[in-house]
Formats: sequence, C-alpha cells, structure tokens
Amino acid sequence: MRVAYQGERGAFSESAARRLLGEAATLPFASFEEMFDAVRNGDADCCVTPIENSLAGSIHRNYDLLLDSDLAIFGETNLRIVHNLLGSHGTSVGDVRRVYSHPVALAQCGRFFRANPHIEPVPLHDTAGAVRIVMERGNGDEAAIASDRAGEIYGAATLAAGIEDHAQNFTRFFLAAPRNTALRPVADGPARRWKTSILLRVANKPGALFRALGAFALREIDLSKIESRPIEGRPWEYAFYVDLVGKVEDEPLAGALENLRSIAELVKVLGSYPTRW
Amino acid sequence: MRVAYQGERGAFSESAARRLLGEAATLPFASFEEMFDAVRNGDADCCVTPIENSLAGSIHRNYDLLLDSDLAIFGETNLRIVHNLLGSHGTSVGDVRRVYSHPVALAQCGRFFRANPHIEPVPLHDTAGAVRIVMERGNGDEAAIASDRAGEIYGAATLAAGIEDHAQNFTRFFLAAPRNTALRPVADGPARRWKTSILLRVANKPGALFRALGAFALREIDLSKIESRPIEGRPWEYAFYVDLVGKVEDEPLAGALENLRSIAELVKVLGSYPTRW
Repeated sequence: MRVAYQGERGAFSESAARRLLGEAATLPFASFEEMFDAVRNGDADCCVTPIENSLAGSIHRNYDLLLDSDLAIFGETNLRIVHNLLGSHGTSVGDVRRVYSHPVALAQCGRFFRANPHIEPVPLHDTAGAVRIVMERGNGDEAAIASDRAGEIYGAATLAAGIEDHAQNFTRFFLAAPRNTALRPVADGPARRWKTSILLRVANKPGALFRALGAFALREIDLSKIESRPIEGRPWEYAFYVDLVGKVEDEPLAGALENLRSIAELVKVLGSYPTRW
Repeated sequence: MRVAYQGERGAFSESAARRLLGEAATLPFASFEEMFDAVRNGDADCCVTPIENSLAGSIHRNYDLLLDSDLAIFGETNLRIVHNLLGSHGTSVGDVRRVYSHPVALAQCGRFFRANPHIEPVPLHDTAGAVRIVMERGNGDEAAIASDRAGEIYGAATLAAGIEDHAQNFTRFFLAAPRNTALRPVADGPARRWKTSILLRVANKPGALFRALGAFALREIDLSKIESRPIEGRPWEYAFYVDLVGKVEDEPLAGALENLRSIAELVKVLGSYPTRW
C-alpha cells in the first residue's frame, strides 16, 4: 500500500496517514495537485488530504480537487494539532529573530508572536519543510513551528512546546482512493461510527433546502456538517457538502438518500467510511 | 463621508466603494485589520470589504473581522471581476517572463498561464499594488494582473484584456459601519431588493437546523445564502451565516426571526440592507 501526502517527511499529513493505515509506505508530494494526480495515474494507491480545521474551517481547494479527481472517501481521522518552536540545540527563544512555518500554523500561534515582538513570522510552504530548512542553515536566530515528530526527524531541539493559541485545534483528514479499491483503514474496535459524505444541489427557490434536509430530519439522521459552496457559472447559487452519520447502504440513511434523490437536483455520494479519533 | 478599503488606489475594493457611495473620500489601508480598526477608532466613517467571490467562495477571515468589529452591514454590491494583463508601453505578451498579482487573481487566470508557459506567476499582496510596482520598475519582462482602472491610474498599457478563466466572476462587497450610523448607499431606484444577514447557532442534535430553517420555509422567505462556520473551542460544531431576502423590521421576516429566537441558541442580526448590482 503506497499512500501519497502533501508536504515533507514529518508533516501532519504523514502522521494522519500512519494513523489511518499503520505502516504503509508514505510518498511525499510538493502540492495537492501532484498528490491527487499520483493516485489517478497509479503512482500511489491512495492519498491522505486535510479537509477541515476546527478553527480555520474547510479547505475548499482540497474539496474541489477531491471532486475533480473522482476518488471516493474511505476513511477519516482527526489529528490534534500541537505546534512547537523548533531550532538548533543551544538556541533559546530570546535568541530567535525569525520563525518559519506554514501560514496557517503561524496564524494559530498569534499569542506567542504577540508575547515575543522581537520575532518575525515568515511564511513557508510546509511546517516540516521549515524545520528541515532551519536545521540545514543552522542559524541561531532562526526557528520553525512544526510537530514534535518533525523535530525528531530533523534532529531539532524544542525551544517551546505547545505554543498554539487554542488546545481545541484539530485537523480532519480524508483517506481517498479510486472507487473500486479494496481499502479499509486500520480498525480500532467494532463500535466505530460510520459517516457518509454527499454533495447536494437543490433548486434555487424558497424552501428547497428545508425540504431536502427534511429527508434526514424526519428519520432523525444526524447531520455532522453542512457547508455551502458556490456553483461555477451560476453566481450566488450554492451546492452543499453534507456529512451524515450512518452507512450509505444501511437504514435509515439508504431510504433518506433515495427520498432525497426525488427532491434534489443532484445527490453525489463522495464516500461512506468509518471514523476514528 | 470617509470610506476605508484594503489595497492601493485602483483596487477592486475602491471601485466597489464608489459604486456604493458615489464620490466619497476613499482611504486605502494595507490590511483588513487596519481597515476595520480605522472605522472603530473613528479615523473612517465606514468601510467596504469583499466578503465572497462567486468562484472562490466566502472570505471567512473578513466575516470574522466583521463579527469581531461589531459593525453592521449597510449595503452590498457585486462587482464583475475582469482581469487584464498590464505592463509598460511597447511590451508584448511574448516579452513577459513574470506576472505579479494577488494570489486569487493569479488563480483565476489559470488558462492564460497554461497557454503561456514561459510566464511565471508571482503572488503579491494586492492587484493594484502589483501594477504600481511593475510600472515603477519599468522592466519589459514584468507585468501585472489587475483591473483596467488600476491600469489607467498607473499609466500602464493593456497587453491582454479579459484573461480571467470565467466570465461569471463576481465579488460581493459589504458596506459596514457602526450600528447607529445614518448611512445609506447610493440609491438607484425604489424597487431594490432588501436582504438581511444573520449569524445563527442551533443545538448540536439531529433536526435542529431543519427546525430552524422551518421558520423561513413556512413563510416562503428566500434564503439567498447559508454557510457553516466552525465554533471556536467546540470542534466540529458549527454556526451559520444566513442571508435572507427581506427587511428585518417587515413581515414576514420580522415574525420569522422572532420564531427563530425561540428555537435557536443564538440569532445575531449582522445588518439589513438594500442590494444592488
């Protein structure tokens, strides 16, 4: 099993891949486009993509790539994001003048930067890549923000641990693969919850979304997420990403989806998958 | 009337400000944070902020800043986004090696870059600022992507017009000001539609959103937008930005909102405003 991810060794995506698939071979790619292409071309069997952060919201670009790729979702995991300040051994926070990391990671450490106004945040493409670059250069006034695993991989010292603003900082990752793949994420017990993700489009008239949601509400099916997205070429009309609790082929969800298809303009099942923390 | 906007002279936001307020004094700010601060501090009377693009979706950061600022929405306008390649007179597309613009503008001209692989897209903070920099440097192998108005302001030649991928490319702007301001956007006739924007939070249980939307559906009130946003500190729970057609104090919307307050955990009216194209 070869699983593609975006970023460098030690990226949060690589940790998510290990949680989902155990000791599969992980293949790093510079961009999400290249990662999805690799799965389509058969250079990888599946990929792990971040899709949503509990503070920042959905990563719409990756939803778009997932839809374009026509891959299905086979699993999800939620990773607690802990940011550490990593640098050369012998360096202290007081020495540091520039800190490199992914823009989202920098934004999630706002309190640290306000408390240390002598430090300039510098955006880079990747958290783990920032550690690699800082360690290669070995300048005592530079550090990176990344996971403790990235620190271990590149032999960095932890100058400050857990500097993220909010402890309730989780990123949700999807495991995606071609629709007919025989793929099951690593099991951690029989009682796991299943979820089903769909793309939904309703007519642009009053009450259309209400009637569509009725298919789930009347059966007491839990919507764990609903998010509107613009439809290209139809300004200010929206499609919806909806996550439902349940397995696509089991009742009551199977009946609800059949009902929904008679109401909605479009219902596309993106995947039905076990969820784990 | 002093209206704040983000970007430099010739930015799309400045055009939106003129459409909303006619010949008001426009004050440029480097960041959205500084722009909102200026209104709070009384250095400007109101501001114009992009909130959503018909291709890229909502600009969540600006929604967050609007909520934090406690300003209200007084108007909206939708601007057709036309991207032009602008550079020094005597330059042709074949000469250009680097094109500067805002990352979203670069992304919206994907077809142009695929057709011209000799050109490297380079992200900058602002479309109009990119034109200014290119014209100041005067290098024949550099160009910018921006509006024709930015081209006029900085005296640039149009090397290629309308290079955006999709003609249906609109950006929606809000006019925001302190709640008690006496502010009316420029009128263009009595028959304009009104909209009301609210923030809605419902209990995290099956059917809660369905029941909340019932307050509108049963009164045939049109939802022109609904979008979920994560709630800080409550991972995977969501609040909703909802836009409704109607005036907040008129029926049937007034009754629907009263009904909604008895069902929902939170209903906050962000503004009720006339809409124009």
